[in-house]
Amino acid sequence: MAGGFRAPSTGTVVKAVLFDVFGTVVDWRTGIAGAVRAFAAEHGLALDPERFADSWRGRYQPSMELVRAGERPFVLLDVLHRENLDDALAGEGIDPGGFAPRVLDDLARAWHVLPPWPDSVAGIAALKRHYVVGPLSNGNTSLLLDMAKAAGLPWDLILGSDVTRAYKPDRAAYRRPAGFLGLEPEEIMLAAAHNGDLAGARAAGLATAFVSRPAEHGERPGRDAAPTGDWDVVATSITGLAAQL
Amino acid sequence: MAGGFRAPSTGTVVKAVLFDVFGTVVDWRTGIAGAVRAFAAEHGLALDPERFADSWRGRYQPSMELVRAGERPFVLLDVLHRENLDDALAGEGIDPGGFAPRVLDDLARAWHVLPPWPDSVAGIAALKRHYVVGPLSNGNTSLLLDMAKAAGLPWDLILGSDVTRAYKPDRAAYRRPAGFLGLEPEEIMLAAAHNGDLAGARAAGLATAFVSRPAEHGERPGRDAAPTGDWDVVATSITGLAAQL
Repeated sequence: MAGGFRAPSTGTVVKAVLFDVFGTVVDWRTGIAGAVRAFAAEHGLALDPERFADSWRGRYQPSMELVRAGERPFVLLDVLHRENLDDALAGEGIDPGGFAPRVLDDLARAWHVLPPWPDSVAGIAALKRHYVVGPLSNGNTSLLLDMAKAAGLPWDLILGSDVTRAYKPDRAAYRRPAGFLGLEPEEIMLAAAHNGDLAGARAAGLATAFVSRPAEHGERPGRDAAPTGDWDVVATSITGLAAQL
Repeated sequence: MAGGFRAPSTGTVVKAVLFDVFGTVVDWRTGIAGAVRAFAAEHGLALDPERFADSWRGRYQPSMELVRAGERPFVLLDVLHRENLDDALAGEGIDPGGFAPRVLDDLARAWHVLPPWPDSVAGIAALKRHYVVGPLSNGNTSLLLDMAKAAGLPWDLILGSDVTRAYKPDRAAYRRPAGFLGLEPEEIMLAAAHNGDLAGARAAGLATAFVSRPAEHGERPGRDAAPTGDWDVVATSITGLAAQL
């Protein structure tokens, strides 16, 4: 567990590899679309599952921005996911008030049980032999815990955004985990499929690894299909990242 | 992971089993005495390793009491362990100022790498199949993380006292983890080898399991050799606890 890889950008040996989760470790779009499909079938709704998943996810950054800007006190991502579900339904002309709250609560819990990419479990397990591994996600701890149990993600520890009380890309979200881990920020590497997330991590002093996930948005090519920065490591899977570290 | 055991004291199904660590999961006395023995040999000191371990550990509760009483702001247990080492050395007539600080820092880090009891890893792994498992310890997160890595403790997550910012038996120390886990306090069971710890957990609404560890204090029979309350479960090992749950 002594780590080993010395990151070019920091000149420091990495001891912990922390992961962005939505898109990097789990395939949120497939998972959410599947839950939406079941929900639509049960309630006789004409919803395109993938398009609805994109619409729901599209409200993710704007809803956190209010918290990051200090216009709203910190709230759990669970709360934002639930509110954004109401908005996304309304966007389809569907009144969320027409459902028992419990029904929509259950649908929003789909974010707790997303399927991992095929290499995620094996890659994290391989890294765990030499590094501390955990999520560095905007998800709250219970969301990440449920996800880890369901998907078998072998994290060493889970410190959600409700522990750090900050949402990426706020600098605090990247730096506060170091204190809990007994490490310096530069001893931590963020692994993520999103260039913006890695830019935030680098600005906060962390080492960076880009893991490409070209299927994150389905057939639609995303702006994060390729690395746009000189990240310390570039890989096409977490097992590939483990092999490089 | 749905849990299953319904605790008589609460009437509620347990979903997470959280553990006291020092004495319940790991054999702190053997671990610390071993580190003290090596330290004494290296520096030519006449120290009885087990007695010194008891002296060092004896300063644990009084040092936390200042924090619990609000007479001192919250500090990491690492800091208290380090201060208490100075005190314990002074108690033996040894000037802690006579050592490079790094030497004593290293000795104090022995609390991060304590050996598990023989049944701990297997017992926690068995419980993990049906329950969320983690520590509920006064240790800070990095201490518990290092310990888990060294001993192979397969926790689902690690939320140290620096996350809850409370020391047991303060009520908050028992109740705050529930919020992070997305559970009610009564859905959590504390497993501990100490009756006082379990009394605190029960007062805070948790389910309770007594795991006897008669060898915690070596040959000296401790006051916690037997259960003194009607705890929800009584076991003689963590594997035995898993079998009962």
